[in-house]
Amino acid sequence: MERVVTRLYVKDSLSQGATVGLDAAGAHYLRSVLRLNTGARIGLFNEKDGEWLGVIEGLGKGWCSLQIQEQRRKPAPEPDIWLVFAPIKRSRIDFLAEKAGELGCSRILPVFTRYTDVKRINRDRLAAHAKESAEQCERLSVTEVDDAVALDKLIDKWPDDRRLIVCAEFGDARPIAETLTEILVKEPDAGQRPWAVLIGPEGGFAEEELEALRRLPYVTPIGLGPRVLRADTAAVAALSCWQAILGDGGMRPPKGTTPVTVA
Amino acid sequence: MERVVTRLYVKDSLSQGATVGLDAAGAHYLRSVLRLNTGARIGLFNEKDGEWLGVIEGLGKGWCSLQIQEQRRKPAPEPDIWLVFAPIKRSRIDFLAEKAGELGCSRILPVFTRYTDVKRINRDRLAAHAKESAEQCERLSVTEVDDAVALDKLIDKWPDDRRLIVCAEFGDARPIAETLTEILVKEPDAGQRPWAVLIGPEGGFAEEELEALRRLPYVTPIGLGPRVLRADTAAVAALSCWQAILGDGGMRPPKGTTPVTVA
Repeated sequence: MERVVTRLYVKDSLSQGATVGLDAAGAHYLRSVLRLNTGARIGLFNEKDGEWLGVIEGLGKGWCSLQIQEQRRKPAPEPDIWLVFAPIKRSRIDFLAEKAGELGCSRILPVFTRYTDVKRINRDRLAAHAKESAEQCERLSVTEVDDAVALDKLIDKWPDDRRLIVCAEFGDARPIAETLTEILVKEPDAGQRPWAVLIGPEGGFAEEELEALRRLPYVTPIGLGPRVLRADTAAVAALSCWQAILGDGGMRPPKGTTPVTVA
Repeated sequence: MERVVTRLYVKDSLSQGATVGLDAAGAHYLRSVLRLNTGARIGLFNEKDGEWLGVIEGLGKGWCSLQIQEQRRKPAPEPDIWLVFAPIKRSRIDFLAEKAGELGCSRILPVFTRYTDVKRINRDRLAAHAKESAEQCERLSVTEVDDAVALDKLIDKWPDDRRLIVCAEFGDARPIAETLTEILVKEPDAGQRPWAVLIGPEGGFAEEELEALRRLPYVTPIGLGPRVLRADTAAVAALSCWQAILGDGGMRPPKGTTPVTVA
């Protein structure tokens, strides 16, 4: 398969012969950052149609049209794992959105807990980081980014069939690897069901918040070892373990996507 | 146990009644950043003596002396896991040093591979990030930072008893969770032996580099799933899985160290 370095996520339907227009940001990126011209070939993808080869038919200031040629990858189901997290300061929350994208999160949900210091998030900026990381890491979908809500509001409307792993720094909690491996042994298809990981703020959960969470039937409190991790580190650690044990850790990157290896 | 918010790593021996002096950076931090005065109590720790309560006896511009009072935590063995990585650009390498600290790496070793773009590292800056993260995450030791060397030089002097997990984006590799869980079943004490994780550069390993690594008796190639991870993400994911499955993921943070939870 022809190696395509640039991949862009587009919402439009992708099918042989179709013409697709990019938004202003996408057009600017191809024209002014990558300095591509008519005839250049890039990858276009979304979760419905998979990945297709697109050829630039025309581009100018703020616009770009591409003709869709052959399909490179078929759409494929991905794990459905949410990351619920208390907002943290700017460079770390950007990092978190990027890493959630790379680690295959289907959605990130910022929540305000009692000890959350950061009071606002920039949803568009987080979505841009999530989209860019999906484009770079060969995903076929992009992490959705929700508006921030209070933790109790989120719990009020929580879907009962979505299990929630709560990273608990104090109180009873079993080790993450042991817990997820046991679940896998009992339910080999557990990773095909909906899951979520919840990470508290830098100041930790309030004791009563954590106690209330523990009482919910869909919650499993887990521990991440003896070190008190920063919120961003805890999120990446928990998502990595979830993907490795219950998620798609057994799959390999698609052929033709890994870096050029000819010396 | 009295909660101590500030912890500093010191090389000096720590024992009841001893007087310890800080370096200029530590003194500046206590005096000008935290604005502490004589009589304030902080934690002092190192891997030989554990953690002790220290009381500021005197401090001025560039100096601080503390008297050591009671021991807060006994020294304890920690997993011996190295992170070997190809240098990446500045903000990501700083991040990597911080995360390696939090994830309990005993040592980080920058290596130049064929496709490593970054040609120099600032070892002191990485060591400062590693030290700060150890101080924040309740470790009793600090990640050591080696000078950068060529990958083949490192392999020439590699200690035969240290097993090396190579994160391989292409070619044969088994899933990390499955592989480490199998090792744990066969050798329940495998996590008490020396290990290392190797992450390639952003451009990936050259095919012959990876082939040469595969032939080494102490190497286990592993895969991290279908997404092509950035080098920093791959390092954090692999270290998180290693600690969760083979390392100290079954332990809990020491009492009195987790955030205040009184409402």
